[in-house]
Amino acid sequence: MSDLSIDIKITKISESKISTVDFDNLTFGKIFTDHMFVCDYIDGTWQTPEIMPYQPLTIDPSARVFHYGQAVFEGMKAFKDENDQIWMFRPEDNFNRINKSSHRMAIPEFPKEFFFEGLTKLLHMEKDWIQKGKGNSLYIRPFVIATEAAISASPSNSYKFMIICSPAQSYYAGEVKVLFAEEFSRAADGGVGYAKAAGNYGAQFYPTSLAHAKGYQQIIWTDANTHEYLEEAGTMNIFFRVGDTLLTAPNNDRILDGITRKSVIQLAKDNGIEVEVRRVRVDEIKEAAKNGTLKEIFGAGTAAVINPIAGFEHAGDEFDLPKMEDSYASFFKQKLMDIQYNVSEDPHGWRFKV
Amino acid sequence: MSDLSIDIKITKISESKISTVDFDNLTFGKIFTDHMFVCDYIDGTWQTPEIMPYQPLTIDPSARVFHYGQAVFEGMKAFKDENDQIWMFRPEDNFNRINKSSHRMAIPEFPKEFFFEGLTKLLHMEKDWIQKGKGNSLYIRPFVIATEAAISASPSNSYKFMIICSPAQSYYAGEVKVLFAEEFSRAADGGVGYAKAAGNYGAQFYPTSLAHAKGYQQIIWTDANTHEYLEEAGTMNIFFRVGDTLLTAPNNDRILDGITRKSVIQLAKDNGIEVEVRRVRVDEIKEAAKNGTLKEIFGAGTAAVINPIAGFEHAGDEFDLPKMEDSYASFFKQKLMDIQYNVSEDPHGWRFKV
Repeated sequence: MSDLSIDIKITKISESKISTVDFDNLTFGKIFTDHMFVCDYIDGTWQTPEIMPYQPLTIDPSARVFHYGQAVFEGMKAFKDENDQIWMFRPEDNFNRINKSSHRMAIPEFPKEFFFEGLTKLLHMEKDWIQKGKGNSLYIRPFVIATEAAISASPSNSYKFMIICSPAQSYYAGEVKVLFAEEFSRAADGGVGYAKAAGNYGAQFYPTSLAHAKGYQQIIWTDANTHEYLEEAGTMNIFFRVGDTLLTAPNNDRILDGITRKSVIQLAKDNGIEVEVRRVRVDEIKEAAKNGTLKEIFGAGTAAVINPIAGFEHAGDEFDLPKMEDSYASFFKQKLMDIQYNVSEDPHGWRFKV
Repeated sequence: MSDLSIDIKITKISESKISTVDFDNLTFGKIFTDHMFVCDYIDGTWQTPEIMPYQPLTIDPSARVFHYGQAVFEGMKAFKDENDQIWMFRPEDNFNRINKSSHRMAIPEFPKEFFFEGLTKLLHMEKDWIQKGKGNSLYIRPFVIATEAAISASPSNSYKFMIICSPAQSYYAGEVKVLFAEEFSRAADGGVGYAKAAGNYGAQFYPTSLAHAKGYQQIIWTDANTHEYLEEAGTMNIFFRVGDTLLTAPNNDRILDGITRKSVIQLAKDNGIEVEVRRVRVDEIKEAAKNGTLKEIFGAGTAAVINPIAGFEHAGDEFDLPKMEDSYASFFKQKLMDIQYNVSEDPHGWRFKV
């Protein structure tokens, strides 16, 4: 990953717009930094990557991304420590996952050296956009779209790999209650649920809007066949604390292999917390809520890090979760953020110096 | 639908590119006509529709369509009869279906009068692009994309409804063999399979590419739960002729409510052909192939009209279908095209005069 290994064409903006940004009042994903990374796939080859001023794309209305959702993405964050050093968290896992997603969506994989060289250069150029202080970060969105101007239902011959960046505070605010899915589903066995395929997300908007109308911020998806097993929350993996044991669903072809999820599992093991990675029944969680052994539910994902759940509903039964001192949620959040912000040791080598 | 009812802003090209097009050698979906229809949804309202020269879109890289596949489409055709009159086939059904798809994808529905006024005006402007002769048509692609520049995982606040048109000959060429899906799936119960949601299509590209590599042009999808029931082909609904009875799967939330499909069912009834709309087992079709009662398999869809299948494979078992004189496939194709090209009577009022 030496600076000399990859040729990146760089065009800088003449004047940064950073002075116009109110970093204390950011809406997630609305403001983007001065530059973006772009690499086109044409004639079977990824072309010379470019970093250029953030700007609109010019793209044919027949581009396959518009018609067939041939698109994948990732979510990552960059953090700044007290000495102005920039860090990322397990970015190699995001890189591997975007290629896994691409493979499932018939998109050519992206070269590792292009990714890390481009990402590093871009973050160095945008370093002023990364604010110090816990909770502050630069949200990084790599994505790939099918750009060929042709509407036959077949894979595109051209693509655009891009990285755009958006300064972020914490993703969720307020008390989060969730609905366990009874009717709608997120993914099929043999489908693309494990991939960060664009269409997986748009398909959740309508059921989620119905949940919102009932006063729930998120849906915890259940398996499409029986709706008896709890799977993931669409933008987060889900953990249940029953007694002092942590439960979470195993990965399969419906469930995203979350990087925060696997970090939580490792941290639990490191800290003597029992974790069971197994199918989790709706019934057992409701039963545990009734008999008082269900202590916590929390989501784990890049955007939210750890997101405690205050209550849930299923089949008309509503449950509130106890407010806990010393919750696992706050324990894991602290542990993860201490690593991310270079405050603690990093025994597993998750921190990546940018 | 009077010309006076809707205000459409029209900007014409200065010179048509039609003279550069070789209508005898068209690749499906590569060439587009001179103009396109565009209507933006902003601040809770569909704005004044426009017909303008076909041109690239200028769209922010953070637009939700790129990240979350919030997009739907339709496929329609316009035909020209011997007297230069333009016709469409059941366009109201396409209009209703795009709004049904939009509803499931949390996209605001499009006004009917905008759709028909825009479509009619556009087709009159592009009338020279519609070639006479059976098999020739103008393929019409209405679609809606989420355009808001923001990457939070929630429905967009702005959209673009567009119609683009591409001159077409027949969609499929050569002998088509299909693979019955054993592992991969197209849609989940409770998902978006019944909608023409963009992501449904991109998700099929990879499994279909594996089928291609084995010598099969298409996959017939089976139910995601058991893979025991035959559902649809992704770009077509599927019919099986066992003895003289036609079998096809019922609509459900995984299977597209195909307009050609329901027209075939009606034509079968009109012509004394027995149709069973019921779940169709993989096993019964294989058994029928073995004992010689399986006479035909064909697909039905707007692009291909009727697409006869020459053979199939499932679980390593390969079957060739007999070549038939007087096949149902050619009977229905003839009947449908006679209606579409204004050659026959139209007892059900399917033809729409443009």
